[in-house]
Amino acid sequence: MTINVKNFLKDKPKLSKMGEFQELQPIEGLEISAVSADLYGTGRDDLCLFYFKDGANYASVYTSNSICSESITWNRKIRKKFIKALLVNTKNANTFTGTQGSEALESLSKNLAKNLTLRESQKKGGTSQVIKPNEILFASTGVIGERFPTQQIKGNIPNLVDKLREKQNKFVWFKAASSIMTTDTRPKLAYEECRVWNKDIRLSAIAKGSGMISPNMATMLAFVFTDADIPSIFLKSLLKRVMTNTFNAITVDSDTSTNDMVAIFSSNKVRTGKIYNVLDPKLKDFENALQRLLLNLAKQIVADGEGAKKFITVRVINARSQQMARNVAFSIANSPLFKTAMAGEDPNWGRIVMAIGKAGEKISPDKIEIKFGDLKVAEKGKISEEYDESKLKQYMQWDSLVVEINLKLGQGSFECYTCDLTHDYVSINADYRN
Amino acid sequence: MTINVKNFLKDKPKLSKMGEFQELQPIEGLEISAVSADLYGTGRDDLCLFYFKDGANYASVYTSNSICSESITWNRKIRKKFIKALLVNTKNANTFTGTQGSEALESLSKNLAKNLTLRESQKKGGTSQVIKPNEILFASTGVIGERFPTQQIKGNIPNLVDKLREKQNKFVWFKAASSIMTTDTRPKLAYEECRVWNKDIRLSAIAKGSGMISPNMATMLAFVFTDADIPSIFLKSLLKRVMTNTFNAITVDSDTSTNDMVAIFSSNKVRTGKIYNVLDPKLKDFENALQRLLLNLAKQIVADGEGAKKFITVRVINARSQQMARNVAFSIANSPLFKTAMAGEDPNWGRIVMAIGKAGEKISPDKIEIKFGDLKVAEKGKISEEYDESKLKQYMQWDSLVVEINLKLGQGSFECYTCDLTHDYVSINADYRN
Repeated sequence: MTINVKNFLKDKPKLSKMGEFQELQPIEGLEISAVSADLYGTGRDDLCLFYFKDGANYASVYTSNSICSESITWNRKIRKKFIKALLVNTKNANTFTGTQGSEALESLSKNLAKNLTLRESQKKGGTSQVIKPNEILFASTGVIGERFPTQQIKGNIPNLVDKLREKQNKFVWFKAASSIMTTDTRPKLAYEECRVWNKDIRLSAIAKGSGMISPNMATMLAFVFTDADIPSIFLKSLLKRVMTNTFNAITVDSDTSTNDMVAIFSSNKVRTGKIYNVLDPKLKDFENALQRLLLNLAKQIVADGEGAKKFITVRVINARSQQMARNVAFSIANSPLFKTAMAGEDPNWGRIVMAIGKAGEKISPDKIEIKFGDLKVAEKGKISEEYDESKLKQYMQWDSLVVEINLKLGQGSFECYTCDLTHDYVSINADYRN
Repeated sequence: MTINVKNFLKDKPKLSKMGEFQELQPIEGLEISAVSADLYGTGRDDLCLFYFKDGANYASVYTSNSICSESITWNRKIRKKFIKALLVNTKNANTFTGTQGSEALESLSKNLAKNLTLRESQKKGGTSQVIKPNEILFASTGVIGERFPTQQIKGNIPNLVDKLREKQNKFVWFKAASSIMTTDTRPKLAYEECRVWNKDIRLSAIAKGSGMISPNMATMLAFVFTDADIPSIFLKSLLKRVMTNTFNAITVDSDTSTNDMVAIFSSNKVRTGKIYNVLDPKLKDFENALQRLLLNLAKQIVADGEGAKKFITVRVINARSQQMARNVAFSIANSPLFKTAMAGEDPNWGRIVMAIGKAGEKISPDKIEIKFGDLKVAEKGKISEEYDESKLKQYMQWDSLVVEINLKLGQGSFECYTCDLTHDYVSINADYRN
């Protein structure tokens, strides 16, 4: 069974879904290529290059894990607010690879910079543009601790640069999104449009992520590309703001990857006029579009969670604060007992009670009201008088379930998204490296 | 496959194991009975009564979950340091049962007190001893939120009281330990002896627990019975002290039950002389015995963790503090990705790295050393030069695995115990209520 994403995202007409993907539009100033360095030994694409010939403003957020990929360490050292390229590899996380891993990036960045500079000079009416190693960002995802395949990647850089194309039709985006997958069963793509100061702005985005997904990001990469010209400092503020209820509101297995990265790049091709601060009303429409875009991708990641058969929304309302609502929501969404019950289509709300309690928040058990969809199961410290096991059994068969907990203590609310814990999760992760 | 408990507890010759149980000795002053109230509809035992005709000192610790069983609420209200009986039921947790659940205990305690008083009066040379409802403790384990089966239990109290026996041979203990099981596949029993002030002291104990096991206890019940005469206040101090490295050092699935209870009862039949404080050297041997006893039971619970195929010791050494070592150890032991890798016999130490990092502690990645048993896999921020995949693959096939993380930062250390996350865990928990 595959989760019918369409069902639970009715309000997102532009949803991308296997066999029915959203058509992403080209972003002026961006060129993309994806090739195989045969890192998997299967010939699948595993390298993806994003190149901005005139550079791009950008902002990014990284994993909260205190051990992180050499790629992230590299990116964090780059102080520039304006970059030229992003190189993504799968199969190898470049984490816990020691100096071999960091030297690899030194070497790859020089090689890639040289090849891109060469390409510029060979263009019709060749420019003398020089791309520098410290104008290149990296992102890696895959197994931790294995030797980084520097030579294999380096050997494919000329090919990767050669294949760069300016006009990204939907197939180019699909190929790019597919090339960054690991245990994902389908690529994640999303598209939004908005208007900034009477100009039409495009946002095209891809993501990957399936396991090691937890709040404060995940084994998860997401890249947003826009043609607007928004300064990096505002991109950063916007990105941080929309993360809370999108990528930081999802969990697959409570594990936080060492390699998470969400970045937004703006190629500045559509001149939107000077923006004075992040609260500038001109940005409101853009922020809303970015919010929808990231929420769409975040939900796609959960729906494709390792082994997931069900998409679950855990909504906590009327907590004392949003933080409290968030703690309780994640305590439920991360509980293996809750998640296995969902897999078994068992409305075992006792496990929700357990998970509310273990969140460590001061709650009033007698006030709690618990609903599955519209069906009330518990209230006033006991099973609801409306409880109807047969209706519940029917509801539990849906692909997408909503669990709502009303704490009746205040105004704080939070909604997070997760999936069930199935046999397939165990299979995928017991045999990941085989 | 069943974990061969014998393998990993070589230092515990008195280990209890299915078909090969430790022989628990009778505790003077204690009487036990177990019967079936047919709560499961299968005729299995589900009620167990422990009765101290001359009373017992006792101490207990309960779940840290802020939502808890009515049984625990009842026990917490009892201010007496001297009790007469403990009634345990399975199948129903008496949690989130509202006033129906609390009134049930009012009613059952009166009924049980009346029946016990009647029995005393009918004994040969009948005593006029009166048992009061507030001298009775309760423990419940099972499904949360279902109506508590008061009448079914009450109907079986006369039978339960009638079957009380003073001489507990090994079969009585086995029957008692079996009667409190839920998803356990085998009963847990442990026995120790020690000397207090030149007197031989016995400690007989039983426990249950398999899922919802997490630090700060678990869906876990453990009852220790001793014939020593140790005041309740010292029992409490000792119990709290030994919990840290025994029951509070285990995790199956990171979920904390609403019903956990660990209690120790001393029937005072062996007069050990006045004890002045908890540091009294007379108590040292007793404390050590209690520590061994609880560690033995705690390990049995993990080894019988839901779906467990492997017993895993996660040892963190040279942390800045014991607390830091504990956080890192549990971050690993609770990681679903680590636990599924263990199930797949995959020495995927990258997931250990990930879990160390997500613990939120300030570590030095370059210093970390990771070992599986005696096999070093990572050091100095990368894969170890001694790394030998074939030896590791062999090691991973063992029933009992030791993962050691040397943080090289200080003197703090902590060892915790967990099991792998298998298909059977999902099966058991997806279908728990069916």
